[in-house]
Amino acid sequence: MADDHAENYVKVCEVGPRDGLQMAPSIMPTPAKIAWLKKILEAGVPEIEAGSFVPPRLVPQMADTGDVIRAMSLCSDHGICALVPNLKGAQLAYDAGAHAVIVPVSVSEKHSLSNTRKGTFEQVAEVQSIVQWVRAQPRAMRVDVGCATAFGCSMEGVIALDRVVAVASALARAGADQVVLADTVGYGNPAQIRAVVRAVRAEIGPVLGRLHLHDTMGLGLANVLAGLDAGIREFDSSMGGLGGCPFAPGASGNIVTEDLVFMLESMGLRTGIDLGALMQARVLLQQGLPGEPLRGNIALAGIPRTYRERAA
Amino acid sequence: MADDHAENYVKVCEVGPRDGLQMAPSIMPTPAKIAWLKKILEAGVPEIEAGSFVPPRLVPQMADTGDVIRAMSLCSDHGICALVPNLKGAQLAYDAGAHAVIVPVSVSEKHSLSNTRKGTFEQVAEVQSIVQWVRAQPRAMRVDVGCATAFGCSMEGVIALDRVVAVASALARAGADQVVLADTVGYGNPAQIRAVVRAVRAEIGPVLGRLHLHDTMGLGLANVLAGLDAGIREFDSSMGGLGGCPFAPGASGNIVTEDLVFMLESMGLRTGIDLGALMQARVLLQQGLPGEPLRGNIALAGIPRTYRERAA
Repeated sequence: MADDHAENYVKVCEVGPRDGLQMAPSIMPTPAKIAWLKKILEAGVPEIEAGSFVPPRLVPQMADTGDVIRAMSLCSDHGICALVPNLKGAQLAYDAGAHAVIVPVSVSEKHSLSNTRKGTFEQVAEVQSIVQWVRAQPRAMRVDVGCATAFGCSMEGVIALDRVVAVASALARAGADQVVLADTVGYGNPAQIRAVVRAVRAEIGPVLGRLHLHDTMGLGLANVLAGLDAGIREFDSSMGGLGGCPFAPGASGNIVTEDLVFMLESMGLRTGIDLGALMQARVLLQQGLPGEPLRGNIALAGIPRTYRERAA
Repeated sequence: MADDHAENYVKVCEVGPRDGLQMAPSIMPTPAKIAWLKKILEAGVPEIEAGSFVPPRLVPQMADTGDVIRAMSLCSDHGICALVPNLKGAQLAYDAGAHAVIVPVSVSEKHSLSNTRKGTFEQVAEVQSIVQWVRAQPRAMRVDVGCATAFGCSMEGVIALDRVVAVASALARAGADQVVLADTVGYGNPAQIRAVVRAVRAEIGPVLGRLHLHDTMGLGLANVLAGLDAGIREFDSSMGGLGGCPFAPGASGNIVTEDLVFMLESMGLRTGIDLGALMQARVLLQQGLPGEPLRGNIALAGIPRTYRERAA
């Protein structure tokens, strides 16, 4: 494992099992899911968003999240995370042994109402309830918040920088361990990523720890580079780019974990992830979801010879 | 047209008509090619690599380059460029009315021998002959040089930074108007782009004016961002990402012009290019090469609403 305190360490969080599988037309069987996630851990991925505690009638792909989290938290003493929309979900995640939860809060009011049936600041209050409940439990569990639509919204368009800062500040005050800014619809550009990260960090410092970027417009890895420049050292990504964009069928969704790891490691940063082993985990993903189109440039072109020559 | 002296101006050079079409399995008819190129000019693209003067038996897709250059140089008093491997090609380009030529010189000796049947420094001498001949003509014609494999080579692997600097310096001494560093096989990463650009600029200053980046590993636009950070303000790209990678069938090749323009303009930089008009030119490209797969994220997802909201 890479030294996660080293200056050149970058933490990659695999969100495919949640953000990806929830969009897939078919449902991956639970044993296949667990085998895939174990392979991801073995490849050195330090954190996995393994599922979400949402109503199974709305997202049947996530109905087995309790079982998956239980199985995975026996394999690792850290890094198993679940998305939870509310306190009840957080309690289920805690009971299943999750090491962290991530709560979605949309910066866009319209998106928030559509996604969680609550306004942005109602959802901030829900985060506060979750934090209070979690802090009263005997076991520690990290409470992260994913600020959806932080870089633009398909419903509201441009999101004002002041609004992003206000929501992030309220979340920090609510006690969130980490604020994650999410480019939910992929509208963000590198100049904007730098500006928003700097403005939010000026208010809440390192509580803004991670970016969740999409590749809808092809700018995903350029936006990662912008995030790195602004001091961010944690990024979400999805194996095979799994997880499309509901408003643009066929368009790219999440940035591709394999390509992200390739970029970071090529730049001399360290992720602790073995790219070859990651490509093997991709095989399990494809077997578990036959017919599902997977994206990724490294998968198409192969790992170039310079990758290992530079590392050697 | 955007003010090309403004600090936020970035020049985009469309290379699809040369670097893209030469790889296509079918041949675009000359009238379709000319109609497409005129549409690209109308969209505001300031420079087009319109073809290459290479033996038609080797590259039949480029057999009409003389006719294309002649037609296009009647439509524009600048920005019509041809690739030429040698003095004879430069003379043909001059006769056809080209405003610029670009001469390929591989930094990798093996790639150079395979591509032009000459070693790197033999080809530098060819550049010198071209410069001397062109300077003696009554009409001005820019002589650019494309340094292939500047960021890695499929045959030689890692290319030493000293070698890139030495080749670029020799080309500047040979009188090249502009040196273009090309990531021919897409092995480059952002940290490397910054390092190489800075090292070469330390030797030859703004004679290093442009980057030619590929998206083989998905890092194309991140590498553009790195180039921008290092002071580069000119980039090659190809409409629809036309132009694959011969050593990796099915893999991405050139960066996509539409996505590049989207990124630059979204960042507040100015290209003088109308993205909507560019998308219309893409329709002509597809009509001229039916069945040819075109890439591009903007084409899949559509121009997002925030693009025009920000500009307004």
